[in-house]
Amino acid sequence: MLLDRNNYHLFQPLLYQVATAGLEPEQIAKPVRAILRGQKNFDFRMVEVTGVDFAQRRLATSGGPISYDFLVLAHGGETNFFGLDSMMKHGLGLKDIGDAVTIRNHVLTCFEQAMLETDPERRRAKLTFIVVGGGPTGVEMAGALSELIRLVLVKDYPRLNIKDVRILLLEATDKLLASMPERLREAAGKTLWRKWIDVRFGATVADFDGEQIRLKSGEIIPAHTVIWAAGVRAAGLSARLGLPTARQGRIAVEPTLQVQGHPDVYIIGDAAYGEQNGEPLPMVAPVAIQMAETVARNIARALHNKPLQQFRYHDQGTLATIGRNAAVAHVFGLNLSGFPAWVMWLVVHIIQLIGFRNKLFVLLNWAWDYFFYERAARLITRD
Amino acid sequence: MLLDRNNYHLFQPLLYQVATAGLEPEQIAKPVRAILRGQKNFDFRMVEVTGVDFAQRRLATSGGPISYDFLVLAHGGETNFFGLDSMMKHGLGLKDIGDAVTIRNHVLTCFEQAMLETDPERRRAKLTFIVVGGGPTGVEMAGALSELIRLVLVKDYPRLNIKDVRILLLEATDKLLASMPERLREAAGKTLWRKWIDVRFGATVADFDGEQIRLKSGEIIPAHTVIWAAGVRAAGLSARLGLPTARQGRIAVEPTLQVQGHPDVYIIGDAAYGEQNGEPLPMVAPVAIQMAETVARNIARALHNKPLQQFRYHDQGTLATIGRNAAVAHVFGLNLSGFPAWVMWLVVHIIQLIGFRNKLFVLLNWAWDYFFYERAARLITRD
Repeated sequence: MLLDRNNYHLFQPLLYQVATAGLEPEQIAKPVRAILRGQKNFDFRMVEVTGVDFAQRRLATSGGPISYDFLVLAHGGETNFFGLDSMMKHGLGLKDIGDAVTIRNHVLTCFEQAMLETDPERRRAKLTFIVVGGGPTGVEMAGALSELIRLVLVKDYPRLNIKDVRILLLEATDKLLASMPERLREAAGKTLWRKWIDVRFGATVADFDGEQIRLKSGEIIPAHTVIWAAGVRAAGLSARLGLPTARQGRIAVEPTLQVQGHPDVYIIGDAAYGEQNGEPLPMVAPVAIQMAETVARNIARALHNKPLQQFRYHDQGTLATIGRNAAVAHVFGLNLSGFPAWVMWLVVHIIQLIGFRNKLFVLLNWAWDYFFYERAARLITRD
Repeated sequence: MLLDRNNYHLFQPLLYQVATAGLEPEQIAKPVRAILRGQKNFDFRMVEVTGVDFAQRRLATSGGPISYDFLVLAHGGETNFFGLDSMMKHGLGLKDIGDAVTIRNHVLTCFEQAMLETDPERRRAKLTFIVVGGGPTGVEMAGALSELIRLVLVKDYPRLNIKDVRILLLEATDKLLASMPERLREAAGKTLWRKWIDVRFGATVADFDGEQIRLKSGEIIPAHTVIWAAGVRAAGLSARLGLPTARQGRIAVEPTLQVQGHPDVYIIGDAAYGEQNGEPLPMVAPVAIQMAETVARNIARALHNKPLQQFRYHDQGTLATIGRNAAVAHVFGLNLSGFPAWVMWLVVHIIQLIGFRNKLFVLLNWAWDYFFYERAARLITRD
């Protein structure tokens, strides 16, 4: 039985394209019941899990208690604002469909409001877009935002002075895409600059009140939009389990992915904390997928009283796209940048999308946008 | 200059397909700026018009005052609950994208909650769906809802007892699709019955508290979903213009579509009240489109001091679809039902959708759903 508070599976790596009006939310999500329709022994309940009674082997949920024999917790991650209250209030995270649609509406509304604004300073503030975090999410978001504005919105707003538009990417360290080799990091930085994105290193955010952002250095930048891609942590459920948490609220698991002292409970994905070669496992989708495979095998082995396997992560590399024809790829021992990396990015993401229909519609959308310099989903659907 | 509180044009006739998870909102809407990009002398402002000062020729808007030489008011219609407060609060209208997504989320949530419900009476109430109003919107909505449930959701919910599901269509008079000839009205009624829709004539709603609906007859039906398709009226702005209003809050216009006493102000669409052959003009899209053409010509004539044309509505007929292979069409003097009417409905609606991309994606969606008995957009995106 699968429990989830949403009725769909979301392909998070393309969320930033929903946020920049390139894809429609329905194209990167698929109803859980549709995905697992063929499984005769499968049941789904749309509930929110609020706690676990490990002794009684029972979950507390919004739909009443549910008992289990084996429990796999895969409740994932959420945006980590690192306790920065002002950012939690005014910043825009990017972890679910609601977040992505909120960013889309907000960015487009800024342009509409800028057209009504007579004061040039206030207009420039409305047209200043700040992305915080130089990991893959921040880099992809900044690149897509730049293309949305410079390839598409310029045509929508013939009275817009493009010199009023600023996009900044703030990174607290001195590295973009820290997990990539240096050559690709440099390539990514250059590509961002070529897209008129002002990349700032050593830039730590101190405060954001919705109208201006203040950096630790004392610098103040008037801006109405801050997209926060600077961190993830384990989702809230982790803190309510009564288990000791490690970094980012994650729960340490045994090498078999079992919870210490509860051999019938497994944790996988962003919520699980494990180490490999002395390094913490990254909070990325490939780790979660490979963990799921190990747990499935381990539960089968437990049922047959066989010894359990230890989890080993096989790092297949990292990919990040920075717009048309531009990406960096560190995969299968290869280091690619530019067009070859971009093609690899396309292929890998289309393959991983669940369902033929989603693959088809996303491909069509990409082809359309590529050839016509368009983003069809640029609707402001709510405030 | 075009003013609108939304940044997109919405093709309302397909809204019911968004509400039943068949289409994605982005596929039946197109950004205004994209539609009119080619027009060099065109400007758009996303504002809400709050009033008109006819003497000063000035609009009051959420973005400040805007002056005009000629004014065309095309603010359209909204759901008319006929002062039924309980329905305004608990009933679901269907006039914009937000309404459609709300219905989709609500219907799918009812199914998820029904699966958690152990009390059979409460489960049946959650699975009882009531559509009020036997006009084209109500008929199309009921038909699409029945197909969503009986062709698609049954596969999603293998533990669902389909006998627990009820769909009712309540009509206050003794006619469905009153503007159609009798033969087609009968055909529509039969098709609805064949889709297990319980069509009730002479059924007037007295009250709905979110858990049960009470009819004037005293009958009480436990149901958690009431979709209100029983009426439209002119949108709220009409009442704030200080002009005398006719039926449904519409404003009576001269045969030239000018407002009496204000020759530089025109009203078109659902907000305008006109009569032809002693009958009020219906509140439908073809009237609005033809009125727009007349007003465009009249403004050009006024600028050249030529006499203005009188508006004449050319009724091209009515179409309503009731699901796969089934529709009724009263067009070009022809009365069609069943498959030929359905094909005509498809062709007419694809032609009228704005933009080649929308046409392509809607056609692909329809083909996919037709052959695979699917509705891809069945996500519950918010509460």
